[in-house]
Amino acid sequence: MPLMRSWVESANAPDTEFPLNNLPYGSFYDDPEDLPHCGVAIGDMILDLTQMEEDQVLDVPEEMEMVFFSGVWNEFMAMGPAVWDAFRTLLVEMLREGAADAAVYRDYLVPQADVEMALPFVVAEYTDFYAGKHHATNVGTMFRGAENALPPNWLSIPIGYNGRASSVVVSGTDVRRPWGQLKAPDQDLPVFAPCKRFDIELEMGAIVGVPSDGPVTVQEADDMIFGYVLVNDWSARDIQAWEYQPLGPFQAKATATSISPWIVTKAALEPFRCNTPERERELLPYLQEPGPMLYDIPLSVAIQPENGEKTVLSRTNYKEMYYSSAQQLAHHTTAGSPMNVGDLLGSGTISGVTKDERGSLLEISWGGKEPIELPGGQTRNFIEDGDTLTLSGAAAGDGYRIGFGDCVGKVIAALDDPYKRD
Amino acid sequence: MPLMRSWVESANAPDTEFPLNNLPYGSFYDDPEDLPHCGVAIGDMILDLTQMEEDQVLDVPEEMEMVFFSGVWNEFMAMGPAVWDAFRTLLVEMLREGAADAAVYRDYLVPQADVEMALPFVVAEYTDFYAGKHHATNVGTMFRGAENALPPNWLSIPIGYNGRASSVVVSGTDVRRPWGQLKAPDQDLPVFAPCKRFDIELEMGAIVGVPSDGPVTVQEADDMIFGYVLVNDWSARDIQAWEYQPLGPFQAKATATSISPWIVTKAALEPFRCNTPERERELLPYLQEPGPMLYDIPLSVAIQPENGEKTVLSRTNYKEMYYSSAQQLAHHTTAGSPMNVGDLLGSGTISGVTKDERGSLLEISWGGKEPIELPGGQTRNFIEDGDTLTLSGAAAGDGYRIGFGDCVGKVIAALDDPYKRD
Repeated sequence: MPLMRSWVESANAPDTEFPLNNLPYGSFYDDPEDLPHCGVAIGDMILDLTQMEEDQVLDVPEEMEMVFFSGVWNEFMAMGPAVWDAFRTLLVEMLREGAADAAVYRDYLVPQADVEMALPFVVAEYTDFYAGKHHATNVGTMFRGAENALPPNWLSIPIGYNGRASSVVVSGTDVRRPWGQLKAPDQDLPVFAPCKRFDIELEMGAIVGVPSDGPVTVQEADDMIFGYVLVNDWSARDIQAWEYQPLGPFQAKATATSISPWIVTKAALEPFRCNTPERERELLPYLQEPGPMLYDIPLSVAIQPENGEKTVLSRTNYKEMYYSSAQQLAHHTTAGSPMNVGDLLGSGTISGVTKDERGSLLEISWGGKEPIELPGGQTRNFIEDGDTLTLSGAAAGDGYRIGFGDCVGKVIAALDDPYKRD
Repeated sequence: MPLMRSWVESANAPDTEFPLNNLPYGSFYDDPEDLPHCGVAIGDMILDLTQMEEDQVLDVPEEMEMVFFSGVWNEFMAMGPAVWDAFRTLLVEMLREGAADAAVYRDYLVPQADVEMALPFVVAEYTDFYAGKHHATNVGTMFRGAENALPPNWLSIPIGYNGRASSVVVSGTDVRRPWGQLKAPDQDLPVFAPCKRFDIELEMGAIVGVPSDGPVTVQEADDMIFGYVLVNDWSARDIQAWEYQPLGPFQAKATATSISPWIVTKAALEPFRCNTPERERELLPYLQEPGPMLYDIPLSVAIQPENGEKTVLSRTNYKEMYYSSAQQLAHHTTAGSPMNVGDLLGSGTISGVTKDERGSLLEISWGGKEPIELPGGQTRNFIEDGDTLTLSGAAAGDGYRIGFGDCVGKVIAALDDPYKRD
């Protein structure tokens, strides 16, 4: 499918992440003192759906009235795939070149540059996976040696653990360096101190839009997914090293998880579906995919020190994952746990084969042994205060791009004393 | 404090779990087709607060109007400790022997025996800890040998992991045996099959009633806790054994977590506060308790096979825990993750020193090596289909008891085929 042209001129530019083919959903502050508004990105503008709803200029069926009032997308998601499709069709009709009422809709365009974004949905629960083979191999090699890099279960299970939904924030939110228990290898006992090895994890996140109440197949799981976001699962490597045995990461992952401002729908990503890599071990039938459920989405990580320039550290692709989000979601339901609208599933860190395709500083600096050189002579093993980390991603179509908006976070200094009260 | 007498006669019986000293909060179905009602247990009755609210016979300040309309306790919890205390005082005034308007309130009493209970609060997020030393030592001995039973971090950190809030159910809900990936030690590859080693974990759960947005002290954490429930964290030991390295339990804990029908408030438990056991390693200052924050609550586990008799398997006490819920909650906030009203923190399995004080079948049957003998010649290593497991707990006051109501779950057979659709 080629570029679909819009009467919003900036949506026809070849480098925009938001052509008419995309139509991603987000939430923004029309008034910083008020609830956010729901909007759809088109070129460098946002169509203000909450305001259109209020003014009754959205031609939607009765059951969709007031669905954007809350300023988040959960209610819309809960209406199900038929409504998702019908609304997308309506948006295309409203925003396509030559649309009849373009003059009416133009009044509801807000420049993206003028507004602050909000979390686009209430995160019901957050699960993080570990489903990138290159990442798991890199980390395993550092921690357990190359011989034992992949745990025995890794080729059979999309390994995952429950995360903390309350820590999910929207792109642009500053991330404060956490305190935690740290124990150096040459020390007997831990200290309580600010994290020294603060890191990112480049991931994609799948958002559940259709609930379930028992085991689902991979096909059913794919059908349940509403859309995808970029995810930066901030990680305190030193906290993790001391705490994670035997029950997994906890406070190491509790500081923040940033997501991109825009949810790209499954419909927009449809042309970019691809197969997961060839299996090295045959999967159990419940995990086998009936069709392509991964996506070809080029991704990148950049770092910008305070007063420094922005440097791309790594370029990789979502298609490097060993397990798709549909497989992860199917596995997530096996033991009977209900899935709900707004559940977020992080893919796990996405790394490619080579050093410049790695999705975490832990891997890029090889645990701090191979410092990263930045322009101006600075080096990095892990993140320093004042650094801004940016994840980007956009699928490349035939003359257009489907992007998520950058997922940005600046790391600010730890509190001097977390227990001092004013 | 001795027994406080009520005009509800059954509340004065020495064996009731619900004297006027208790006043635990729950939710029940007045009409199974409608929203649940909020109620307070008194003797063998429930005072129907939602109906009283609707009929405007509750003498509460204006800001408390409609707080029970939702049928769950989250809104009430969110009003904060001053309201919790004032409402408890009001309830005592209404239900004490000689209360002026007893005749009015009597119309709002519903026999507990006549109603089905509902989940008393919407679980925001669920965290499970591993903070019982006897349990951790038992499990560690089985898995890693007596020399390495306790992980190196255990005496420094209240080890915890995030669980799945959507799997929390109220006592009385049947629990369906899950399917999952199982790999026998003598097999190379896993199979997908119903769990064969299904188990319980006897725990207490603390409910967060005051939110936080950054690290809190142990004292602040204690102040944030609204009350406690009994928790049965159902566990699939064979799923866990294969999946839990390196990121912890996931589907092994996703089937269900049952909680008692009644939330016992911190106020009711005040007389039973006790200190955590003596430290074997000095805690970091942020985890040190400024006062007694554990509770002396005798607990028990019973099993009843289908058509068999009920047998108590184990008796232990909440005071056996090494870390209190306040310490767990303080640790939970160290890395900055916000805590919200309705967060549930499972204490971890509560075992005592001796075999008849163990809080899981895994420990009682020592991994299946020492089968449990039941009356009538049956034996158990783990739970069989049709077995009903009951957790009970009641603090023993001066002539009265403070109980939670039994936490009951019957295990029903796994689905024949989880992916067969009607």
